[in-house]
Amino acid sequence: MFPFGVDYYPEHWPEERWPRDARLMHEARINVVRLAEFAWSRLEPEEGRFDFDWLDRAIDVLAGHGIRVILGTPTASMPPWLASKHPDVFMTLQDGKRRTYGNRRNYCPTSETYRLYSRRITQAMAEHYADNPHVIGWQTDNELGGQTGGCYCEACREDFGRWLQERYGSLDKLNEQWGAVFWSHVYNTWSEIPAPLESGSSPNPGLALDWKRFASDAYVDFQQEQIDILRELSPQKFITHNLMGFRFDQLNYFDLAEPLDFVGYDIYVRMQWTIENEVDPSLAALGHDTMRGLKRQNHWVIEQQSGSGGWEIVSVAPRPGELRLWAYQSIAHGADGIIFFRWRTARWGTEQYWHGVLDHHGEPGRRYSEIQQMGHEIHVLGDLIQGSEVRAEVAILHHYDTRWAFQIQQNNPSFSYAEHVKQIYRGFYRQNVPVDVVHPATELSGFKIVVAPALYVLPGEVADNLQQYVQGGGTLLITARSGVKDEANAVVEQPLPGLLAPIAGVAVEEYDSLPSWKSNGLAFEAPGLEGETLESAIWADVLTPTTAEVVARYTREYYAGRPAITLNHAGAGRVLYAGTLAGSELFTRLARWLLELASIEPLLETPHGVEATARWKNGRRLLFLLNHNESSATVTLDHDYRNLLREGAVVSGNVSLAPYEVMILQ
Amino acid sequence: MFPFGVDYYPEHWPEERWPRDARLMHEARINVVRLAEFAWSRLEPEEGRFDFDWLDRAIDVLAGHGIRVILGTPTASMPPWLASKHPDVFMTLQDGKRRTYGNRRNYCPTSETYRLYSRRITQAMAEHYADNPHVIGWQTDNELGGQTGGCYCEACREDFGRWLQERYGSLDKLNEQWGAVFWSHVYNTWSEIPAPLESGSSPNPGLALDWKRFASDAYVDFQQEQIDILRELSPQKFITHNLMGFRFDQLNYFDLAEPLDFVGYDIYVRMQWTIENEVDPSLAALGHDTMRGLKRQNHWVIEQQSGSGGWEIVSVAPRPGELRLWAYQSIAHGADGIIFFRWRTARWGTEQYWHGVLDHHGEPGRRYSEIQQMGHEIHVLGDLIQGSEVRAEVAILHHYDTRWAFQIQQNNPSFSYAEHVKQIYRGFYRQNVPVDVVHPATELSGFKIVVAPALYVLPGEVADNLQQYVQGGGTLLITARSGVKDEANAVVEQPLPGLLAPIAGVAVEEYDSLPSWKSNGLAFEAPGLEGETLESAIWADVLTPTTAEVVARYTREYYAGRPAITLNHAGAGRVLYAGTLAGSELFTRLARWLLELASIEPLLETPHGVEATARWKNGRRLLFLLNHNESSATVTLDHDYRNLLREGAVVSGNVSLAPYEVMILQ
Amino acid sequence: MFPFGVDYYPEHWPEERWPRDARLMHEARINVVRLAEFAWSRLEPEEGRFDFDWLDRAIDVLAGHGIRVILGTPTASMPPWLASKHPDVFMTLQDGKRRTYGNRRNYCPTSETYRLYSRRITQAMAEHYADNPHVIGWQTDNELGGQTGGCYCEACREDFGRWLQERYGSLDKLNEQWGAVFWSHVYNTWSEIPAPLESGSSPNPGLALDWKRFASDAYVDFQQEQIDILRELSPQKFITHNLMGFRFDQLNYFDLAEPLDFVGYDIYVRMQWTIENEVDPSLAALGHDTMRGLKRQNHWVIEQQSGSGGWEIVSVAPRPGELRLWAYQSIAHGADGIIFFRWRTARWGTEQYWHGVLDHHGEPGRRYSEIQQMGHEIHVLGDLIQGSEVRAEVAILHHYDTRWAFQIQQNNPSFSYAEHVKQIYRGFYRQNVPVDVVHPATELSGFKIVVAPALYVLPGEVADNLQQYVQGGGTLLITARSGVKDEANAVVEQPLPGLLAPIAGVAVEEYDSLPSWKSNGLAFEAPGLEGETLESAIWADVLTPTTAEVVARYTREYYAGRPAITLNHAGAGRVLYAGTLAGSELFTRLARWLLELASIEPLLETPHGVEATARWKNGRRLLFLLNHNESSATVTLDHDYRNLLREGAVVSGNVSLAPYEVMILQ
Repeated sequence: MFPFGVDYYPEHWPEERWPRDARLMHEARINVVRLAEFAWSRLEPEEGRFDFDWLDRAIDVLAGHGIRVILGTPTASMPPWLASKHPDVFMTLQDGKRRTYGNRRNYCPTSETYRLYSRRITQAMAEHYADNPHVIGWQTDNELGGQTGGCYCEACREDFGRWLQERYGSLDKLNEQWGAVFWSHVYNTWSEIPAPLESGSSPNPGLALDWKRFASDAYVDFQQEQIDILRELSPQKFITHNLMGFRFDQLNYFDLAEPLDFVGYDIYVRMQWTIENEVDPSLAALGHDTMRGLKRQNHWVIEQQSGSGGWEIVSVAPRPGELRLWAYQSIAHGADGIIFFRWRTARWGTEQYWHGVLDHHGEPGRRYSEIQQMGHEIHVLGDLIQGSEVRAEVAILHHYDTRWAFQIQQNNPSFSYAEHVKQIYRGFYRQNVPVDVVHPATELSGFKIVVAPALYVLPGEVADNLQQYVQGGGTLLITARSGVKDEANAVVEQPLPGLLAPIAGVAVEEYDSLPSWKSNGLAFEAPGLEGETLESAIWADVLTPTTAEVVARYTREYYAGRPAITLNHAGAGRVLYAGTLAGSELFTRLARWLLELASIEPLLETPHGVEATARWKNGRRLLFLLNHNESSATVTLDHDYRNLLREGAVVSGNVSLAPYEVMILQ
Repeated sequence: MFPFGVDYYPEHWPEERWPRDARLMHEARINVVRLAEFAWSRLEPEEGRFDFDWLDRAIDVLAGHGIRVILGTPTASMPPWLASKHPDVFMTLQDGKRRTYGNRRNYCPTSETYRLYSRRITQAMAEHYADNPHVIGWQTDNELGGQTGGCYCEACREDFGRWLQERYGSLDKLNEQWGAVFWSHVYNTWSEIPAPLESGSSPNPGLALDWKRFASDAYVDFQQEQIDILRELSPQKFITHNLMGFRFDQLNYFDLAEPLDFVGYDIYVRMQWTIENEVDPSLAALGHDTMRGLKRQNHWVIEQQSGSGGWEIVSVAPRPGELRLWAYQSIAHGADGIIFFRWRTARWGTEQYWHGVLDHHGEPGRRYSEIQQMGHEIHVLGDLIQGSEVRAEVAILHHYDTRWAFQIQQNNPSFSYAEHVKQIYRGFYRQNVPVDVVHPATELSGFKIVVAPALYVLPGEVADNLQQYVQGGGTLLITARSGVKDEANAVVEQPLPGLLAPIAGVAVEEYDSLPSWKSNGLAFEAPGLEGETLESAIWADVLTPTTAEVVARYTREYYAGRPAITLNHAGAGRVLYAGTLAGSELFTRLARWLLELASIEPLLETPHGVEATARWKNGRRLLFLLNHNESSATVTLDHDYRNLLREGAVVSGNVSLAPYEVMILQ
Repeated sequence: MFPFGVDYYPEHWPEERWPRDARLMHEARINVVRLAEFAWSRLEPEEGRFDFDWLDRAIDVLAGHGIRVILGTPTASMPPWLASKHPDVFMTLQDGKRRTYGNRRNYCPTSETYRLYSRRITQAMAEHYADNPHVIGWQTDNELGGQTGGCYCEACREDFGRWLQERYGSLDKLNEQWGAVFWSHVYNTWSEIPAPLESGSSPNPGLALDWKRFASDAYVDFQQEQIDILRELSPQKFITHNLMGFRFDQLNYFDLAEPLDFVGYDIYVRMQWTIENEVDPSLAALGHDTMRGLKRQNHWVIEQQSGSGGWEIVSVAPRPGELRLWAYQSIAHGADGIIFFRWRTARWGTEQYWHGVLDHHGEPGRRYSEIQQMGHEIHVLGDLIQGSEVRAEVAILHHYDTRWAFQIQQNNPSFSYAEHVKQIYRGFYRQNVPVDVVHPATELSGFKIVVAPALYVLPGEVADNLQQYVQGGGTLLITARSGVKDEANAVVEQPLPGLLAPIAGVAVEEYDSLPSWKSNGLAFEAPGLEGETLESAIWADVLTPTTAEVVARYTREYYAGRPAITLNHAGAGRVLYAGTLAGSELFTRLARWLLELASIEPLLETPHGVEATARWKNGRRLLFLLNHNESSATVTLDHDYRNLLREGAVVSGNVSLAPYEVMILQ
C-alpha cells in the first residue's frame, strides 16, 4: 500500500475531535500519519515522568480507521522545564550570544546534558512502542541542522579541539596544513584553537572548513545516538529523518542519511518563507533528485505542502490543482510515500499561518477535496508506482566540502555554488533528461554524462574517481574554480585546475573575476557549435590548452581570442572544461551539445513549464506529464499511451493538459 | 488666554541672557513656557541634594513678563551619578544587551530603584512648586515609550510572570489560551515563562501580545506613580504628558492618557528624522485627530516644530510660512494650546541641529518673525478659538492590541496597519470630512459612519459594540483580516470574519496573500458604483455572502468573478465588508460612496493640498482654510465669510490663498 | 639606489625555495624587501623564547643577491599563546563586545599587558638586528588604526578619564564646554564619564569628538613606545610605518607620522575589497598627495598592488600594464621607494586571494614580467628620480578633527567630508595642477591658492593662520559648514562662518539642507563667469554679504536670487565663499576660475584619463604622462622632450600613448 498521509498533532485539539479527524482522513484514503515530533512536553510533562496514554489513545482512534503511524522523537523542541533547569543546553551563535527559550531547534548538539535527555525520551518511546503494531516507523528529531551554521559554544570549541586532534594527529601537521603561520596563528596547544566566532573578517580558510565539518558531524552523532537506541529496542520499525532537499547547506546530508532506512524530505514548493518568489518547479525537481541521490534509492516526502506557508507572513495561496501537482511531481522524482504537512492549520504558535489540509475552523474545503481526489487515485495506482525506479544517465556531483568552502570564500560577489548547480541542473531539466545528484566519490561508470560544477575542494580520491570515469569512456563537464583547493582548504601548488589538469588537458593561465555589470562574449568553434555566440558571466579563466581542443574563445577584454572552453579526449572519454561560472543560456546550450555527444535522448519534447519524467518497474515505464503552467499546454506524444489518471483513457498525438494537470502515461 | 509658548531651557544659557529671552518672548506674545523636563542634574546635582534656586529665579524672570510655566518632571534622562551608582536601572534590549550611559529614555520602567528616584524628585518638585502661582501645570517625564519596544531585563521578565498570573489565574488557562503545546512550550511554573528575546524566529503570538500589553502597562504604571504624588501634593495644577500622535506604537495611549487632565502632543511635520520624506499634511491631521480622540476632548501641542529638526542630520528648512501654517493646522484640529519646541537652538548635545525659534547665535530672524506674527494673531483670536469643538460624523477605530498583533505577525510583507489606517483616513481627509480616531469600545451612536480597519484582534465586547452600533442604524466599514484573532492572539475557530460574520453577512471562504508586484482588479456592481473598476492590493479575501449583496467582484486569478466587497443590511444599519487591505484610489472611492450613503456633506470642496476643517463654539463655526502648497491656490467659497486673520476682511466666491496661507473664516 | 622591492614572507615557504625566490627577485632588479611584519609566532614561538635563526638565514639568502631588508615589528597580529593567556588584550567594539582570536589588528592599544609584550618583542628584534648591515630600516606594526574606530573597553574608558582630566583640568570646564547640562549629563566625577558605546542615538558631540582624539592618541602612543626602543637600540636605521592614504579616517596621521623618518603608504588602486568599483586614478593621486603632505616630504610606497586583491572575494584582475602604471603614478606623486605587496600569493590564510607578483604555484607569469620590466627601468632612471620634488602652488587643508566631527554628525545624508575633499581635489587634478594636502595650521604663504573644504571644527589658531595667509595676498576658497564648531564640537555663538566671517565678508543668514533628489541652480555674475549656470547640491547657505561681492545666486526655492557664492577682498588677498557642498561640475569650474585669478598654469592640457604630473630636481623637471585609459590617447606636447623610458627617444607635437602607457619626459 502506497503510503499516503498527513502530519497530525492530536495534542493540539480536543480529544472529542479525534474521531472526526480520523474519519475525514479515511475518507481521503489517508493510510499513514506522522505523530509526536514536537510533543515532548506532553510525553514527559515533568522530568522523568512519562505520559503515553494520550498518544496511545490517539493511535487507537487512527488505527480504527486503518491509519498507521510514524512517530517522531520530539527532541527538536525542548520543554520549558528542561530549558529552565539547564540553560547551558542552548546553542551559541557565531556572534557569541547564547540563544534563550522561545523557539525550536535551539539546542547545542554536542551538549552532554541535552544528549542525556534526548537519549532518555528516545528510550522511553522506543520501549513503549516497540510492540505497537500500528506504529510502523520512527522519524528522528526534525529537520536537523539549518541554513545558518551550528553552535559556537565553549563546549563545542573544546570538542572541536578533540575532533581536530583525531583528524590531524599533531599540531605540527595542523599548523602546516592550515598555513597557520599566516598572521602568526601558529598553535602551541589544542586548547588555543578558537571557534570561528565573528572577528571582523574572514577566518583562516582551513580552520573555517574544518569547523563546518565538525559542526555537521555533531548533528550526525546526535542523531546516531537516537538511532542506536531505536535499532536496539525497536528493531522491527524503519527509521527515517526529514531532510530539506538541496536547500539546507550546513549538514553533510550524505553522512546524515547513511544510517537511515530511507531519506525523508520536507518540501514546500510555493513561497514558503516570503511571498516574494515565484514557483520554480525545477528547484523542486532538483530537491527530489538530491534526496534520491543521498542513498541512491527512493525517498519519502514527509512534509508535502498542504496550503499557504507562513510564520509572520501568509504566503500566496496554492492555486487549485497545485498541491496535487506537486505531490505527483514528488512521486515522479522517486518518492515512495507522500505525507502532507499538516492536517489542520494550527490556531496558535509560530506556525499559525502554515496552512494545513483543513483551515483553522476545521471544516473540509477546497484543499481537502484536492487531497481527497489524489487519495483515491493513489489508492488505485499506488501499487503500480511503488518501488519503480527513476533512471538517469546524467549525474551532477554535489559536494558539501566545496559548498562550505564557497560559503567561507565566495570568490565573486555574484557567485553562489547552489545557483551554479541549479543553472546546470536546469540545462538538463528543461530538456526532460533525468538527473541523479550524487556524491563525488560515487561509482560513476553507469552514467553517460557527469557534471562536476566548480569542484573547488578536490580530494585526491575524487580526482582519481573522475579520471577513472573518463578513462573508461565517460563524458565529464567541469567548470571554473575546480581543483583549486586541497582538503585543508589551501590553494594547491600546481597550475589550475590542479589535479584535474591532466584529464582536462588545459592550464588556467590567469583568471578575471568579473564585476556584476560585466559579461564576456564566447565565440564557439567546436563542431556542432561553430559560429554561435553566447555570454558568460561572473568568472573568466584564461586557458592554455595542453592537449585539449578549443570549444569557445572570449570576444572581449585583454584576453579576447583566448580559449574559454575546451574539450579534451582522455582515454575512452572526454572532458569539457568551461572556464566560467554562469551564463543564462550557456549551460542549457552546453547540456544540449553534451547530450548529442553522449547520445542521450530526452524523454519527450515539451513546451515551457511542462515537465516530463519517468519511473521504471519490471521493464515498464510510467511517464509523468506535469503542467506547471497556470494555462493549458499542448504536448505532442511520440506514440499511444494509456492515461492512468483517467481510468486508462488512451491518448495520442497532440494532447492538451489543463492548468496544473497531471498525466501518468503507460 | 489661549496658551501660546515655547519650550525653554534656561539652564542652557547664562543667567544674564534670561531677561532678554523673556523680553523677546513677551514681544512675540508668548504667555507660557515649559521648563525643566531634562534638568534633573541641575535640580538634584547630587543624590538627595535638591537645588531649585536657579529655577525659581528663571520662573521669576519669566513671570515678570507675564509668562506662566509648565514644569516637566525630569525623569526622562537620568543624571550620571544615578547611572553610575545603579547600572541595573538601564533598559535591556530585545537582543539581551543592557543599555549604558549616554542618551535619554534609557531606563527600565519596572526598575524599583529607578522608580524610587523618580518618586523622590517628583515629590521634591511637587512640594517646592505646589504654591508657586506662576507654575500652572505639570508634564510627566517626556515622550514615554518609543517606537521600538520596552525593556526585556530579568526584572521585567519576573514582573511579566506576576502580570500573567493576574491575567490568567492559572497556568492551565495560560497554556491553553496561548496554545503552548505547540512546539512543546507548556509551562509548569510561572518562572519558566521567558521574555520574548530574539530567538531566531517569531515567538508564540499569545506570549508576544501579552508581553506588549505588559510593557505598555509598565510605562502607564510608572507615570501613575508620578501623577499620584502630583495630585496629592500639588492639587491645583493640571497634569499632562507629551505624546507622539499616531506615530509611536508601543504604548496604549488610551491607558496613558486616562489619568491626565488633557493630552499633550509633540508634532514635527517636516522631516524630523531624515530629510528623505516630503511633508504629508494628512499625517499631521491624523496625529491630531488621534490625540483628540484619546480622551474625546481638545488637546495641547506641547512641542510644535520651530525649525529644521536633526540630530546627526539637519533636515530641510521649513519654508517661510510653514511653521505658522502647521500651528494653525494644530488648532484647526482641536489644539487648545501651542508650545513651540524650542526657544533657542542648543549649542551642544545630541539635538544641536534641532532648530529653535532663535538660531544658535540667539538673534531674532525669519522664524522669530513668523512666530511673533502668529503670537499677535492669537492674542486677538485666542478667546474665540479656545474651547471650541471639532465635530466629526465619521469615526475610525484605533486598536493598539490589533496594531501590536500585526507587529508580531505582519501577514503580508507589504502590509502595515498604520499605513492601512492612513490610507482610509486620507479618503475622508481629502474630502474635508472631519474624523474622530477613537477606541473600539467607545460609544459610537453619535457617528454616521464608523470604520474598523483590519480589526484583527477582536474582543467580544467590541464585536457587541459594533453590532449594537449597526443595529441602531450605523454605517460600518470593515476590511480584510478583521475578527481573525481572539484576545489571546489565537486564530478563532469559526469562519472569518469571526464574531463579525453575523453583521457582515459574509464568510471568507479562502484568502490569497498577494506578492508585492501583483494586484487584483475589482469590478463594481452596487448602485452608484456599477461599471467602475479599481485595483486592490496586498490581500484578497474570497467571499461567500450569506445575507450580504455583492458590491464588487475580483477580475483576475482563479477567484475572478468571486465577491470581493459586500454590503449587508443588519437592523437599521449596514455593514460594508472590503476583503482587501489596500488600493491607492480604492478607499477614497469607498469613502465618497459611504458619505453619499450616510448623507454626510464635506465642509467645502478644495483643490489638492488645501485643507478645510472647522471648530464650533456656541453654535458658530470657525472654518480654517490651510494651503499646504508651495504655490497659491484658489478656493470657491459657498457664501460670504469674514477672514479673521485679516482683521475681518470679507471674502467670497473665488478666493486665492498664497503659498502656505491660512484663513480663519466666520 | 632607488628602493624597488617586494613584501616577502619566507616563513610561508619551504627554506629550499628561498634561493630561487631571491634569484627571481634579483632578475627583476629588486633591491629591497620587507620581512617579518606578521611573524611574531615564529620570532617568539613561546612567551619569552626568541628565535631569529630562520630570519637571519632568510636575510642572508637575500643579501646574497644584493637585496636589503626592512623589518616590521610583528605586533599587528598576536600569537595564540598570548591571546590564550591574556584574553583581556582584545579590543572591545562600540557595541560592547570583546573581540576574540582569529584575525589581526584585534588588540586594545591602551592595554598595559599588550604594550608589555609589544615592547619586549621590539626590544629583542632591535637588539638582535641593530648591527646587521643588511637591515636598513624598521616598519612599526602594520596599518595602525582602521576605518571603524578603536577600542571601547573599560581600560580605555578609564584612560579616557585621565586624558580628559589632562585636557580640561576641571570637570566644571568639561561640563561647560561639552554642554553636559543637555539631557542632564553633568558629571560629578571623572569616573562617571562613559565611553560612547552604542546607546540608541548619537552621543554628546563634545564627548564623541574627544573620544576620537583620545582613540587616535592611543595608537600614536602605542607606536611611540616602539619607536623609543628602536631609536635607542638601533639608531642607525630608519623608521617608517605603512599608512593608508586618504582612506583610513580614524587616526590623526599628522600625529602618527611626526616621529617617523618618512611616511610609508599602502595603496591598492583596483578594487581591493569588492569588485564593485571602477578604478579612479584621482583617488590614488589624492592618496599620495595626502601622504606626501603629512611631513611635507617624499614618501615610500610600502605596499604597491601586485595583483587582484581579495579575501573572500577575488577582485577584477589588473589589466596588463596597470601595475607598472600605478607604480609610476606613485613615483610621479613623490614616492621615493616602491615595494610591491606581495612576492608570492599565499596558499593559506585570510589573504589567499591577495595576489602577489607570483601566483600560488610560484612560477613567473605576466605580472612578474611587468614588474621585471619596471625593475630594469628603475635601475636605469632611479638616481635621476630619487630626491626630486613635487612642487604645488595649490594646497588643500585636511583636518582630522573636522573629519571626525562629520562622522559624528553627518549634517546631510548625502554628505561626506571625504567625498567633498575628493570633489575639490579632482577640480585641480583634472587640469594637471599639482596639489599639496596639508595640515590647516601649516605655514601657507608658499601657496597661491588654499582650499579649506568645509572646515567645520575651527580652532582659533587655524582661523588666525588663514587670516594671515589672506592678508598676505593669498587666495582662499572656503565652503559651507566652515567655522561651525569650536574645538569642543559645540556650535559657535556668532553667525556663520564664525571666526572666518571677517575675512569672508559674509554672514550665513540661514541654510537649507537639501534632500537627495533636489539640487539648486546657481546663476553666476562675477567677471569671467557671468551668464554661466551650474547646479549645486546637498547644502545651501543663504548668504548676506557684509563686504563681499556676489559671485553666484540661487535660482530656485524661496531663496532664489539670494547670494550663494561670494568673493571678498581682504588685505592683499581674497576669499571665495561657496555656500554649498557639492556639484559635479561646480568645483571643477571654480578651480579653473581660481587658477586664472591666481595666475597658475596647468602642467599640460591632456585628454580625459591622461594624467600629467611632475617632479623637479636641480632645476630640471621630469614630466610624467600616465595614460589611465584602456584605449590609447593623444597628447599635444608644448615642446620637444626626451622620453626617458624609451632610451631617451625624442617626442614632440602630437604623441600617442598606448593603453596604460607611461612616459617620463625631460
